Amino acid sequence: MRLLFLGDIVGRSGREAVIHHLPALMRDLKTDFVVVNGENSAHGFGITAKICGELYDVGVDVITTGNHVWDQREILDAIADDDRLVRPINFPPGTPGKGAVVHETRDGRRVLVINAMCRLFMDPLDDPFAAVEKAIDGTALGGDVDFILLDIHGEATSEKMAFGHAFDGRVSLVVGTHTHVPTADVMVLANGTAYQSDAGMCGDYDSVIGMKKEYPVKRFTTKLPTPRLEAADGEATVCGIFVVTDDRTGLAISAEPVRVGGLLAETMPVG
Amino acid sequence: MRLLFLGDIVGRSGREAVIHHLPALMRDLKTDFVVVNGENSAHGFGITAKICGELYDVGVDVITTGNHVWDQREILDAIADDDRLVRPINFPPGTPGKGAVVHETRDGRRVLVINAMCRLFMDPLDDPFAAVEKAIDGTALGGDVDFILLDIHGEATSEKMAFGHAFDGRVSLVVGTHTHVPTADVMVLANGTAYQSDAGMCGDYDSVIGMKKEYPVKRFTTKLPTPRLEAADGEATVCGIFVVTDDRTGLAISAEPVRVGGLLAETMPVG
Amino acid sequence: MRLLFLGDIVGRSGREAVIHHLPALMRDLKTDFVVVNGENSAHGFGITAKICGELYDVGVDVITTGNHVWDQREILDAIADDDRLVRPINFPPGTPGKGAVVHETRDGRRVLVINAMCRLFMDPLDDPFAAVEKAIDGTALGGDVDFILLDIHGEATSEKMAFGHAFDGRVSLVVGTHTHVPTADVMVLANGTAYQSDAGMCGDYDSVIGMKKEYPVKRFTTKLPTPRLEAADGEATVCGIFVVTDDRTGLAISAEPVRVGGLLAETMPVG
Amino acid sequence: MRLLFLGDIVGRSGREAVIHHLPALMRDLKTDFVVVNGENSAHGFGITAKICGELYDVGVDVITTGNHVWDQREILDAIADDDRLVRPINFPPGTPGKGAVVHETRDGRRVLVINAMCRLFMDPLDDPFAAVEKAIDGTALGGDVDFILLDIHGEATSEKMAFGHAFDGRVSLVVGTHTHVPTADVMVLANGTAYQSDAGMCGDYDSVIGMKKEYPVKRFTTKLPTPRLEAADGEATVCGIFVVTDDRTGLAISAEPVRVGGLLAETMPVG
Ligand SMILES: [Fe+2]
Ligand SMILES: [Fe+2]
Ligand SMILES: [Fe+2]
Ligand SMILES: [Fe+2]
Ligand SMILES: [Fe+2]
Ligand SMILES: [Fe+2]
Ligand SMILES: [Fe+2]
Ligand SMILES: [Fe+2]
Repeated sequence: MRLLFLGDIVGRSGREAVIHHLPALMRDLKTDFVVVNGENSAHGFGITAKICGELYDVGVDVITTGNHVWDQREILDAIADDDRLVRPINFPPGTPGKGAVVHETRDGRRVLVINAMCRLFMDPLDDPFAAVEKAIDGTALGGDVDFILLDIHGEATSEKMAFGHAFDGRVSLVVGTHTHVPTADVMVLANGTAYQSDAGMCGDYDSVIGMKKEYPVKRFTTKLPTPRLEAADGEATVCGIFVVTDDRTGLAISAEPVRVGGLLAETMPVG
Repeated sequence: MRLLFLGDIVGRSGREAVIHHLPALMRDLKTDFVVVNGENSAHGFGITAKICGELYDVGVDVITTGNHVWDQREILDAIADDDRLVRPINFPPGTPGKGAVVHETRDGRRVLVINAMCRLFMDPLDDPFAAVEKAIDGTALGGDVDFILLDIHGEATSEKMAFGHAFDGRVSLVVGTHTHVPTADVMVLANGTAYQSDAGMCGDYDSVIGMKKEYPVKRFTTKLPTPRLEAADGEATVCGIFVVTDDRTGLAISAEPVRVGGLLAETMPVG
Repeated sequence: MRLLFLGDIVGRSGREAVIHHLPALMRDLKTDFVVVNGENSAHGFGITAKICGELYDVGVDVITTGNHVWDQREILDAIADDDRLVRPINFPPGTPGKGAVVHETRDGRRVLVINAMCRLFMDPLDDPFAAVEKAIDGTALGGDVDFILLDIHGEATSEKMAFGHAFDGRVSLVVGTHTHVPTADVMVLANGTAYQSDAGMCGDYDSVIGMKKEYPVKRFTTKLPTPRLEAADGEATVCGIFVVTDDRTGLAISAEPVRVGGLLAETMPVG
Repeated sequence: MRLLFLGDIVGRSGREAVIHHLPALMRDLKTDFVVVNGENSAHGFGITAKICGELYDVGVDVITTGNHVWDQREILDAIADDDRLVRPINFPPGTPGKGAVVHETRDGRRVLVINAMCRLFMDPLDDPFAAVEKAIDGTALGGDVDFILLDIHGEATSEKMAFGHAFDGRVSLVVGTHTHVPTADVMVLANGTAYQSDAGMCGDYDSVIGMKKEYPVKRFTTKLPTPRLEAADGEATVCGIFVVTDDRTGLAISAEPVRVGGLLAETMPVG
């Protein structure tokens, strides 16, 4: 299977870049499945049903999120009606929405997408390792499902690399989100799982993690309150990872970074 | 000027890779100056005078550090005798060693190297932004010194990007260290400062941030104590950034990632 | 029922004070049950089977712990053989030991003791609120058990007060530990649960949370490494809370602080 | 000198209790000077010039603050005109307001009031120990000033106790604020400085640190967003510490807790 994952979409600039570049990416990479992280797609904070619809319209199959998922309160209700919008699986029982979904490709192959929140330097939640173990328990990769994607939304590289190794050989892809900066460690781990510590944001990199830079810099240097942060509006770089798996095993044959548009150096998979 | 910066050297594997690859890198890139972060070079924890000597012997000009600088206690005394070993500048007054040094290239050009600790998700220290302001105050880039390198040792991408913008146009390079994972956001900022959120480690990437993976994974999943962590001993990837500056201004003409050896996809500058 | 709870016993000084004062306290207060937190009883770090034995010998019924429970590695094995030593209930499944125990008074009344780790400013663990809910689910207070004691080991007053209100009317006592300083907010909450944000340590208060003060002060001011911290050895103050409940309901009739010996102002219950 | 310090005033309930009880406290304790922490006096968040005026009107001499000082933006401008309102001294240079003030008693004795932010588990700021050292440097206690009060606004008991010892014998009183729970460790340290880890709030203790309890409990248990927190409106307990010093030395003869009104057990100094 050929799967493209794109990191946190930040604001209008991020949405426009994804909408603009995704059709060509899907065509050129012959993708079977597309997943994006949408937790910052609404003005940099949260996501709405309308935005989900726009992303599905251009070919996105599943949307993952993270700590910002509820920033737009309306999604608390709307998430029940959306089978393709995933919120972190290790939120407390009773949380609206689902932490894992299975969605099919056009030709009927099945992809299990799991979203989990890391905990180091983040809000305390239930163990994401245990939650993922439970979510994949009894699901044969290469049998029941053809691809298992694990979006681990977190800050610390140590926790993310530990995630990669903990599930190496049992899922198709472990990819981090949340830092809004792509890491250059795309690789296939020892037992066949594709891995990248962070996919990076789809956003304007002339910014502080996607936000207009003046106020964040001011906050760091003056420790004074500033007006609310706004998403930067320069051209976004679409950032992600492209993975090709062997359908017999569901494990990765290749994993390569994708970066298109905006300020960052472009890179396109050859695989 | 042509400057190569390499990220946190982790353990014997990292040291051997740097010692093995640096001569060719210096020759191929025609470097004028080489800076490495050495805070994890001794078994993954700290640095010793002997290791400093080995790094200087292969061409390293200046060594920066970070939160692990004192892990080997002997360096607390030895640092006074080393004019090229830098510890974070925003440690309390009275801390042994220097937070900034000026060192010359073979042809007499002057490079100011500053090491600062970020604070978000890290130990509380004095303001690194203010400390760097003070360290560069009155020093004309392109005049008094030909290159100003700022190694910001930190966890959070937001603080690092804020650092880049806060000093954009006033220093030659802002490069992050500490996460042990290279970021794919090497760029020249709007006002001419080269930037990368994290240079990545020179270490074995089949690991958890350079440490053998068994115990870190166990700590995350069981929350039980484990024996002391050990540096991973597979082949290391040498990771860093190569910057070419205009000597009239001290600002960047180009900035490109360097990755050589080990597991990560290789990349070499064309600049 | 008349129950005495004593906070974190720190080092030899804390142990000696508890051993010295407990017999008189038990006699004067006519206690039916005594619980102590022992997580720092071995040199300030952890606990051993031998120390548990010494505490049981002077009348302690149940020992709770906290984040320092495994500091003395031997207890990892020994805890299986001790039905009265409790470790935090929200450690991962598979952790040695028990997070809740029922122990009887001499006259056969039953006390359920639960130990839970808070999460704010502490190590990330599974939800302690949910773990306690599960531990008391189906257990009728005033029926199946006569007293439910909840030792919430944590840093933040907000989380501890939230705990008090979340279980008010459903447990006999919610008492905090870990900060090593007694709080002056002993009260009976609106629905009958006795509450104190922190019981305080049984330790020498001429110290930094029970440790000899020189090195901790040095760490805060110099940020340099120091030798290992040692438990302070001046006379300890025994700190705790004394609760009288109505056996028909298991809820509190009165709650009063206990402080005896050492530097802090003494206070003895009249109840 | 006879000085009364009251902890964080929370909301209308806290203000009303202070306004109601302060006149009698001043009369009964024959106070020479009154300091209150006002960082939560406006609806639980921040302070206004109007509230400062009301507090001065009932006899408050100096108001300290903390991390919430700027929650009401208007105080950013107003603080310049108020010589008795103190914000933390270790905010960055250029911050509006003063971190230390000297104010006189009616009979001309001088009190130096310093407010500092702790750093453990709090926002990263410059070293509060160093800032206080500088603020008292060259000021003879018992000579230039008759009393030095240090309000250390912080979370961790370890940092607060370290503060006490670091300045023991050099200031009259080290008292903590911020946790909103009074500690029962009021004492005079070895070298004559009065000490309490936290004065506690002047607020309604049937709450979560002064806020109506429903939403905070919900946040801890569901991790879902809630409407904005509101200050609890039950009767407040006025909490603080009363210190008597020897004017020849400025050091403490006695230190006793004060608690009046509301839910907590009352206590009044005999000194
Ligand atoms: Fe994000
Ligand atoms: Fe996020
Ligand atoms: Fe490092
Ligand atoms: Fe580091
Ligand atoms: Fe403890
Ligand atoms: Fe503890
Ligand atoms: Fe407060
Ligand atoms: Fe505060």
